Amino acid sequence: MDNKIPYKIYLSENELPKQWLNLRAFMETKPAPLLNPKTLKPMTAEELSDVFCYELAKQEVDDTTPYIDIPDEVRDFYKMYRPAPLIRAYCLEKALKTPAKIYYKFEGNNTSGSHKLNSAIAQAYYAKQQGLRGVTTETGAGQWGTALSMACSYFGLDCKVFMVKCSYEQKPFRREVMRTYGASITPSPSETTNVGRKILKEFPGTSGSLGCAISEAVEASSTNEGYRYVLGSVLNQVLLHQSVIGLETKTALDKYGEKADIVIGCAGGGSNLGGLIAPFMVEKLQGKADYKFIAVEPSSCPSLTRGKYAYDYCDTGKVCPLSKMYTLGSGFIPEASHAGGLRYHGMTSTLSELYHQGLMEARTVKQTEVFEAAEQFARIEGILPAPESSHAIRVAIDEALKCKQTGEQKTIVFGLTGTGYFDMYAYEKFHDGKMTDYTPTDAELQKGFDGIPNINL
Amino acid sequence: MDNKIPYKIYLSENELPKQWLNLRAFMETKPAPLLNPKTLKPMTAEELSDVFCYELAKQEVDDTTPYIDIPDEVRDFYKMYRPAPLIRAYCLEKALKTPAKIYYKFEGNNTSGSHKLNSAIAQAYYAKQQGLRGVTTETGAGQWGTALSMACSYFGLDCKVFMVKCSYEQKPFRREVMRTYGASITPSPSETTNVGRKILKEFPGTSGSLGCAISEAVEASSTNEGYRYVLGSVLNQVLLHQSVIGLETKTALDKYGEKADIVIGCAGGGSNLGGLIAPFMVEKLQGKADYKFIAVEPSSCPSLTRGKYAYDYCDTGKVCPLSKMYTLGSGFIPEASHAGGLRYHGMTSTLSELYHQGLMEARTVKQTEVFEAAEQFARIEGILPAPESSHAIRVAIDEALKCKQTGEQKTIVFGLTGTGYFDMYAYEKFHDGKMTDYTPTDAELQKGFDGIPNINL
Repeated sequence: MDNKIPYKIYLSENELPKQWLNLRAFMETKPAPLLNPKTLKPMTAEELSDVFCYELAKQEVDDTTPYIDIPDEVRDFYKMYRPAPLIRAYCLEKALKTPAKIYYKFEGNNTSGSHKLNSAIAQAYYAKQQGLRGVTTETGAGQWGTALSMACSYFGLDCKVFMVKCSYEQKPFRREVMRTYGASITPSPSETTNVGRKILKEFPGTSGSLGCAISEAVEASSTNEGYRYVLGSVLNQVLLHQSVIGLETKTALDKYGEKADIVIGCAGGGSNLGGLIAPFMVEKLQGKADYKFIAVEPSSCPSLTRGKYAYDYCDTGKVCPLSKMYTLGSGFIPEASHAGGLRYHGMTSTLSELYHQGLMEARTVKQTEVFEAAEQFARIEGILPAPESSHAIRVAIDEALKCKQTGEQKTIVFGLTGTGYFDMYAYEKFHDGKMTDYTPTDAELQKGFDGIPNINL
Repeated sequence: MDNKIPYKIYLSENELPKQWLNLRAFMETKPAPLLNPKTLKPMTAEELSDVFCYELAKQEVDDTTPYIDIPDEVRDFYKMYRPAPLIRAYCLEKALKTPAKIYYKFEGNNTSGSHKLNSAIAQAYYAKQQGLRGVTTETGAGQWGTALSMACSYFGLDCKVFMVKCSYEQKPFRREVMRTYGASITPSPSETTNVGRKILKEFPGTSGSLGCAISEAVEASSTNEGYRYVLGSVLNQVLLHQSVIGLETKTALDKYGEKADIVIGCAGGGSNLGGLIAPFMVEKLQGKADYKFIAVEPSSCPSLTRGKYAYDYCDTGKVCPLSKMYTLGSGFIPEASHAGGLRYHGMTSTLSELYHQGLMEARTVKQTEVFEAAEQFARIEGILPAPESSHAIRVAIDEALKCKQTGEQKTIVFGLTGTGYFDMYAYEKFHDGKMTDYTPTDAELQKGFDGIPNINL
């Protein structure tokens, strides 16, 4: 064991980043802009600010400013749970008998249980600054809704969460955490919106979907005065806020003279991975250092590995702007899996473009393999990981085992985005041998591709 | 805001205590010894080692060695989640508009969700050293069972947990966390022990009790070769291991030149409070400094505030040694409450003796007041506390508000023993206005007192 490097590297509060890193500003070929679904022209900040807070809309379209100041109020909140530890997985290395050095950035040490809080607090701050009364959002697995509830509570904002009905019923404890923070939670589809009523009429007894919950949340933001809609992933603004993950990780490694060889993260909408790799990717883009980046996605929802790079709708209801991204089609409904946070048909435009340029790799893993890694990790490193995060653990272990074969002492860094305390139902399935895997056939994927609009700009 | 003191004080790994503090060694009048229930004579380490691991039995009876080395293997495990942060509650101070300085030692940043892991890993270590195959225990709320499962998994020991049947059914997720760590969980009463079968025959359909689960776990340790019984609170050995909480707290305060005026902890069996106050109490006993210590107990189970100081049985089945303690009687069944960890009829002998000597205060609080404080704290400080821990929060807030009235700038330190992620059912009751309070009448307490044996030594 290298005695100089502790198990947990905690940066001091002074080392907390003062600015977010805007990865797009460093890219020569920028990610394609969002398109207005009616005009098919690039969305301006003004247009976006009908739905989003104005400052966030500005951040969304800004692909030139390399660093953006983190407001003091947001930094003060960050100090309650950040800097997050970078942990040297000594026990895992020993158990795997690998020469590789393994580090993970742990974002689960806060009540929301994940990295989502990093962007939630920023979005709530800008909403408060704009003098809004509150915000609306949707949540599936519940991590984003929880994070936003905490952030809104802190700034005294109202928070209306549309929670996919089946999650609302299956995850009553997630719901109660949000209620503890004063949020109002509505099972979606609901009778409170036009779109909800329409869907309920058409599909009585439906247990809802993320696409529907988004539509309800967007509608509620427009019909309630003083409200805007906020979103926890996919958007550029979210990647910007999440860069705090990567910046802290890089500072911690630099401090101990460590250089990552491989950086691994799970990828649903891309918020965590985009944030984690940001400062490393900048060095790669500038030719200062080389890194291997691996995005890990579930075999049931393989947007990067098997999707098409095209303009597509971000939501099932087709009311949101179009984004150029790797997509399975907005009509693709991924098989139910226990990693709700990774069940998105597309991928944030920034990561899509980087992947398209060959600057990043992607890999799919099966659910049961993921839970094997999750349980192994929990037993060895003590932390019970979220199913989403465990996708990264799976690949980190695989890479460490490769090093064992080749004898290479690579430095592997992965993002441990959250804890699995509210996912024990999934662990139960796994323990009882009732968990199954799913990989869509080419024919099944084709159906989703058929719904992608034909837009060539 | 005092800029010199960060929100979170993280000690370095080098500052992790190398020795536990044995508070009894500093007491002039020692806590009374455990008595053999058959002979009513003080238990020797040899006698105790029929049930407990030998090293732990030695620690149990040792009231003279002031410091005991923490084995390297245990310290290595501690490094995965310790030193635990001492947090300056800047946000709470501001919200309360109090001149008081408030600090809390947060023990919830590990998968077991509480301080219980500090002793679980020590007990598992000594079991492994002794060459045992495994250990047995009982769990009610589930935090101890979870901690022990993690500890046993780390050392490759088998772990048999008897979980009170109503908890087993109501808290399936707690159960799954334990299964993730490879423990076998049996709902108690069960058909696997004589005592379980007897109880099931006598009370068909019973949902179990902690007293019964203890009896089953003790029986299982004696009928399975290579097993011993372990316990998560009440015992002196547990207080010894938990001294790591107080030692870290004091080191952190000293580092910033802070001196506590009031130290507050919730008290069920006394493990957390005994550990937190240990080094401060030593200074008080030595006349080096004065501190006000407050033990907080639920009004439904007021062992210190309304109990008798007498020798009593530690378990309902009366098979365990007798302990001199503040007790409500081993037959006292506390009203069901949402702070399962505080529903013990007695109090560890060390704290009982200190309280008897007037070195410590005690206070009761009502359940609904506790949850009000819990929710307030969650919203302001971001951490969702366990119901047990929230008893300490309630009194810390009360003391801070007193300072607001008097204008005194006292320094208040309290123990935040754990998180409430598996207690959301209780929060739901609170949100829905369905939570009630309970305070036993004198007549009800008298029934419990009637069962206390008449032992005068």
